[in-house]
Amino acid sequence: MVPDPAVLGLDVGGTRIRAALAHGEAVLLTADVPWPQGLAPRQELGLVADIALSLVSQSGMASSLRAAGVALAALTDREGCVIEWPNRPGWKGLAFRALMEERLQVPTVVEDDANAAALAEWTLGRGRGFRHGLVLMVGTGVGAGLILDGRLYHGHHGWAGEIGHMVVQPEGPACGCGRRGCVQSLASGRALERWARTQGLASGADVELAAAKGEAWALEALADAASWLGLGVANAVNLLDREAVIVGGGVSALGEAWWGPFERALRGHLMNAETRSLAVLRAALPETAGLFGALGLARERAGLTLLAETRAS
Amino acid sequence: MVPDPAVLGLDVGGTRIRAALAHGEAVLLTADVPWPQGLAPRQELGLVADIALSLVSQSGMASSLRAAGVALAALTDREGCVIEWPNRPGWKGLAFRALMEERLQVPTVVEDDANAAALAEWTLGRGRGFRHGLVLMVGTGVGAGLILDGRLYHGHHGWAGEIGHMVVQPEGPACGCGRRGCVQSLASGRALERWARTQGLASGADVELAAAKGEAWALEALADAASWLGLGVANAVNLLDREAVIVGGGVSALGEAWWGPFERALRGHLMNAETRSLAVLRAALPETAGLFGALGLARERAGLTLLAETRAS
Repeated sequence: MVPDPAVLGLDVGGTRIRAALAHGEAVLLTADVPWPQGLAPRQELGLVADIALSLVSQSGMASSLRAAGVALAALTDREGCVIEWPNRPGWKGLAFRALMEERLQVPTVVEDDANAAALAEWTLGRGRGFRHGLVLMVGTGVGAGLILDGRLYHGHHGWAGEIGHMVVQPEGPACGCGRRGCVQSLASGRALERWARTQGLASGADVELAAAKGEAWALEALADAASWLGLGVANAVNLLDREAVIVGGGVSALGEAWWGPFERALRGHLMNAETRSLAVLRAALPETAGLFGALGLARERAGLTLLAETRAS
Repeated sequence: MVPDPAVLGLDVGGTRIRAALAHGEAVLLTADVPWPQGLAPRQELGLVADIALSLVSQSGMASSLRAAGVALAALTDREGCVIEWPNRPGWKGLAFRALMEERLQVPTVVEDDANAAALAEWTLGRGRGFRHGLVLMVGTGVGAGLILDGRLYHGHHGWAGEIGHMVVQPEGPACGCGRRGCVQSLASGRALERWARTQGLASGADVELAAAKGEAWALEALADAASWLGLGVANAVNLLDREAVIVGGGVSALGEAWWGPFERALRGHLMNAETRSLAVLRAALPETAGLFGALGLARERAGLTLLAETRAS
């Protein structure tokens, strides 16, 4: 009998690196390492590979390793080169996939982290059983993964899912992308920070605390941010005729003060609302969704069935 | 040798019915009939079937007929029942596909007319060779067909492509759908009619005439409508990571006064514009695109190769 293949998953984020090695249905080993200070970009990439290889050698699975999947919080091209990573500008131009393949010696897939998390949510989380979905990841930014006919859709360059930069208010607040009135500038954690500053506070978490205490300005802030997201999502649902919308990331933990206005704005802007069926759900997976998505991508790359069978050990 | 199968295509629009019968690569017979006045909805549907059956009997192909495709300017459900047809309210609730199949005695596919036209443009027109496209049909309304991974994408209910009702200006003009600031309300022939009325004129064609004479108000009207469409299309391109955008319908005949502002707004709102490749093209097919799309849908339903081989005789 051929031994079960092993795969590596990596979630390379702005603040930490998560890694997992899976064999058959079991996750054998994991690692979770915050970025150390003071490394050059190539040294940082070397650290990612070192973490991965240490899991492989600890597991004794080197000869069974078939593929690696990486969820990366950066914009990459189809060759896995980094085009843009605002959190780590030094990575721009780095041939990430090629360098990883050189170190790991297995085929490696690099995917946007929101897409990877969407894939995990779709196969292991709340998305199971749907064929046409939109998985939102709403935190500091707003990202999304598109599931079309039951598969993660990549688009022409691999950049599909940029719902955060859908302009819905051309006269709206400035966005980090250089334009005005993007969904992200109106609906993300950054929008809540703007509300917090009007009260002499600093962070989106302050808004959430104040809302939990019932403060009117904070409830208004949550409702405003949620409504703008609802409008942007309705635009996407109308365009793409979704079956389900699943919301993950920081906001998915918020209560009715966010969810009520979000769902009202979303459903209020749907075409043919009476005859349309649309499930609106909270994501089920915790912050490890990106890592499980990366494992799924590796399984896909290795020609294995998708990660519906890959569960946390 | 098995004789080549024949297929029927029908384009059932707000003002006329077009029909074609194709056999192998050749379109053998066509019909083009304006809607007569005073028929009840069921009689109208009977007329559509009569036109189709007359092509079949004239061609002597009854025994070779395998499928029919219909491009319908109405919103239908997955069973081909009419949910909404603002131009012909009496059709609401009509089980169009079932009634057609009963008369024609072959499997029948019903598709949104913009989607059908998009399919034709993709397989016979300017879209050939692209895998990830957006085909816009801009006239009195704004519709679109989505080509994803080389295939027409239908979505969960078959309603994908509603770019015309993407809200991009929540305080904008009222739209027929009951909301404000939809792309269609800002960018379609109806928007030009609003501009015309400010000058005591009546129609979008008046705006086009005045623009051709270089009248400033009319040039501004075209630029404004084109810019709003460009913004809406950029939102869709960012979300879906398109390879090509193809514009058909009435506006595709307009000159630089429309195309310049359209393409500037579109490209100006793209994410990662420097590294992105996006073709922006005028549709090649004339107003028979919907009919050719219907033939393509019939060929697909009959299990034949797609209509790239089906050309006008």
